[in-house]
Amino acid sequence: MSFEKYVNHLQKVADVQYASALLNWDQEVMMPVKGTQGRSRQLATLSVIAHEWTIDPDFGKLLEGLVQDSSLSWEQKRNVELTLRDFEKQNKYSSDFVQKMSETQSKAFNAWIAARKKNDFAVFAPVLEELVALKREEAKFLGYKEHPYDALMDEYEPGATVAMVDELFEGVRVSLQQLLDRVNASPVITNKTVGKKYDAQKQFDVTIEFLKKMGYDFDAGRQDISEHPFTINFNSRDVRVTTRANEDDIFEMLSSSIHEGGHALYEQGLLYENYGLPSGTYASLGIHESQSRLWENNVGRSKAFWEDNFQLLTHAFPQQFKGFSARDFYVSNNLIQPSLIRVQADELTYHFHIMIRYELEKQLIDGSLEVKELKAAWNDLYRKYLGIDVPSDNQGVLQDIHWSHGSFGYFATYSLGSFYAAQFFHQAKQEIEDLEGNIAKGNLHVLKDWLNDRIHKYGRLYKAEDLCEKVTGEKLDFKYFRNYIEEKLSDIYSW
Amino acid sequence: MSFEKYVNHLQKVADVQYASALLNWDQEVMMPVKGTQGRSRQLATLSVIAHEWTIDPDFGKLLEGLVQDSSLSWEQKRNVELTLRDFEKQNKYSSDFVQKMSETQSKAFNAWIAARKKNDFAVFAPVLEELVALKREEAKFLGYKEHPYDALMDEYEPGATVAMVDELFEGVRVSLQQLLDRVNASPVITNKTVGKKYDAQKQFDVTIEFLKKMGYDFDAGRQDISEHPFTINFNSRDVRVTTRANEDDIFEMLSSSIHEGGHALYEQGLLYENYGLPSGTYASLGIHESQSRLWENNVGRSKAFWEDNFQLLTHAFPQQFKGFSARDFYVSNNLIQPSLIRVQADELTYHFHIMIRYELEKQLIDGSLEVKELKAAWNDLYRKYLGIDVPSDNQGVLQDIHWSHGSFGYFATYSLGSFYAAQFFHQAKQEIEDLEGNIAKGNLHVLKDWLNDRIHKYGRLYKAEDLCEKVTGEKLDFKYFRNYIEEKLSDIYSW
Repeated sequence: MSFEKYVNHLQKVADVQYASALLNWDQEVMMPVKGTQGRSRQLATLSVIAHEWTIDPDFGKLLEGLVQDSSLSWEQKRNVELTLRDFEKQNKYSSDFVQKMSETQSKAFNAWIAARKKNDFAVFAPVLEELVALKREEAKFLGYKEHPYDALMDEYEPGATVAMVDELFEGVRVSLQQLLDRVNASPVITNKTVGKKYDAQKQFDVTIEFLKKMGYDFDAGRQDISEHPFTINFNSRDVRVTTRANEDDIFEMLSSSIHEGGHALYEQGLLYENYGLPSGTYASLGIHESQSRLWENNVGRSKAFWEDNFQLLTHAFPQQFKGFSARDFYVSNNLIQPSLIRVQADELTYHFHIMIRYELEKQLIDGSLEVKELKAAWNDLYRKYLGIDVPSDNQGVLQDIHWSHGSFGYFATYSLGSFYAAQFFHQAKQEIEDLEGNIAKGNLHVLKDWLNDRIHKYGRLYKAEDLCEKVTGEKLDFKYFRNYIEEKLSDIYSW
Repeated sequence: MSFEKYVNHLQKVADVQYASALLNWDQEVMMPVKGTQGRSRQLATLSVIAHEWTIDPDFGKLLEGLVQDSSLSWEQKRNVELTLRDFEKQNKYSSDFVQKMSETQSKAFNAWIAARKKNDFAVFAPVLEELVALKREEAKFLGYKEHPYDALMDEYEPGATVAMVDELFEGVRVSLQQLLDRVNASPVITNKTVGKKYDAQKQFDVTIEFLKKMGYDFDAGRQDISEHPFTINFNSRDVRVTTRANEDDIFEMLSSSIHEGGHALYEQGLLYENYGLPSGTYASLGIHESQSRLWENNVGRSKAFWEDNFQLLTHAFPQQFKGFSARDFYVSNNLIQPSLIRVQADELTYHFHIMIRYELEKQLIDGSLEVKELKAAWNDLYRKYLGIDVPSDNQGVLQDIHWSHGSFGYFATYSLGSFYAAQFFHQAKQEIEDLEGNIAKGNLHVLKDWLNDRIHKYGRLYKAEDLCEKVTGEKLDFKYFRNYIEEKLSDIYSW
């Protein structure tokens, strides 16, 4: 009885949170501009309801009783434990803080849109300052052992700490710098896709085909256009992706759609019967990103994938791809070139983009950097790590949506995701007979089914690191990514 | 202080209700099919929250105190009185009933969609039966003096009763029957728009132009496609319309869009500062319909309107309108011909469609008709009033979305709306210099401004009948519609 009561309560909280999610989706995809003010207050009210229900003391008592209940199954017990942990954490948030944060996020999102229109960080900075102040406050009341940023990362990657990520990234930096040096010493290969126009609607139509091939269920989702691509779900049977077109760069929308499609397969692969429960949501953002990046990179930038799919592009853009082979396209898709925009970055330099953001956020949160110094610090780090000058705010500090959402502590999960992805993909190749041959024949479902079975269906039941061990028999190890990227670059650059 | 508290409370209720409205909009316009089950429970949860807040006993005490407060302005006092009335009414609904109703409505909507796909009323009937049982229960606990249907009509048209509407409709029936007989005795005029194809996207583009001309603000709204056209708002700065195309009938989408545009101008004309208050919402559905039908018929089917706008159609469809004059189009747009589909009906026989639904609903609610007899009764009445046989359920009893939403008591407001519209338009012609000349020149804003000023800005502060008197100096009088339609038909049929 009380377990059922627990489930009912959590599912009602989920109802309100998923309603908020729809209001957010609509705001970014459909809403007319003047709707902002009303939408902000509606989101604030819903977030207060969800928060108040989450921290309801009666619910706390129910949880404390249930966690002692020896009649529960392992899965039920695990759900209750995770919920109790959430309960204790959420109780650290006051309703005032939640409302303030929700309102500031809405303001910040709109300021970010406005700033991007003017290509001027100064339009965004004052609200970002408010947000950073709130995040510092949040780190304080959440508590941490060593570094305030630990408290924020824990939100996205439970258990991740500055100490751990600093150590990982130190190795990543050295290792990837060696590879980058080797690329720089190799003869330059021209990206033959550059300098042409690719009609946005035709690109969109191709991405729809990719999503279908991946096994994304359009009866349980849809793809639309937004400023910044994202995946959002209102339950596992309504999981939506967005994408954006760049008519000068054929890779931007293709990668975005496959990336978001990978996220969406994870969400669609959660079990509807676990609606609202920890077992009905994702393990961590690192794991979430492993799914998107596995599809975007390990699959979507592989030779096998383009052997099968290059004809979709030549059909949509016969002029643009005259004289191209699938191999040419595959090579252009995998060139290494330090660049300004994270989401357009190659697989190697991508992690420098992440490490830059990670450094800046750490400093913003511990107070060693202020928002007014952020733009200069950003530009300095791009010069230092990638050797490039940032010519404008839109191509620099304004490029990501994350800060406008108050998502500090998020970026590291992208790199963790790539590293998990390489390790999972390595394992999939061991277990699925002729995976590459299947990919080359368009049988992507063998991979989707494997991911559904080995990862998705467990939801949040296993911690990221435990899930990794369960799936691959090992803890997260950067060597899988290192080997994967080195093998690919050896092919591309004929090392 | 307590007035401010009252406003805050009402605005939070509005936040939740507007969030529900967005979930509904999305369900009908955007949602993938498998999203239904999750969406239903989300809507149910939100409706329980809104209901519980509406009937909060502490809020009741606040209202009872405020209603005695002599320091309030007239408008403040009126808002409080209306809210107290709503409070007392809502207290008659149990949370169980609200949740049951919300779930049944969602089920019914999906059953209606499924039934329409199969063109089979039997698919819809079982859920409709559940809904009718709930509506009978609702009439009982809401209470009524003479007829249970009074209790349901009051929801849409406060104060309307079976006694009053029966009497009005008796006169309408006789009067319109005379005109219909006269039409039938006149030489038949051919509808020259029939038998051609009109591309849906081109129609859509034309309706966007119409909406812009009417003064519909696209920065505070958008138009999309749905199964059944509707207008919905999430505050006065986000008011959305939907429409539907029929490539065989040029009038369906044009009329729908102008009709919904009329509704939308009303909602956009409400004052944002009155968000959540009675003064920030519409007076009655009859008044709402007066705005949509004034634009759809009195403006959108007038000679003056097509003098200005016919060129938009000839431009979009040069082949289809070869050899047409604006006058030809105006005549085709106003031909009287008994037909099957309410929303495609001409201005005269339209009211027979309404009277049929009104009769059937009255009987369903008082128990003299059962759902299993509904289809036969529908078909009988179409034979009796309009002299036509109903060849299929989609063209008959399944055509309207209203019952799938549980909206019983709604239909009469369409006819009331036409009659109010005629009276308002007559008044506008008295007050606006050369209104028809302005319409013929595309200066529709003079009419929009007049409606904003005389009707919209008051929201619900005046009862429908009082608003009518305030605007026109008279109570609602059917003679204005009678004269309007007779004058038009005299022109069309050269009487």
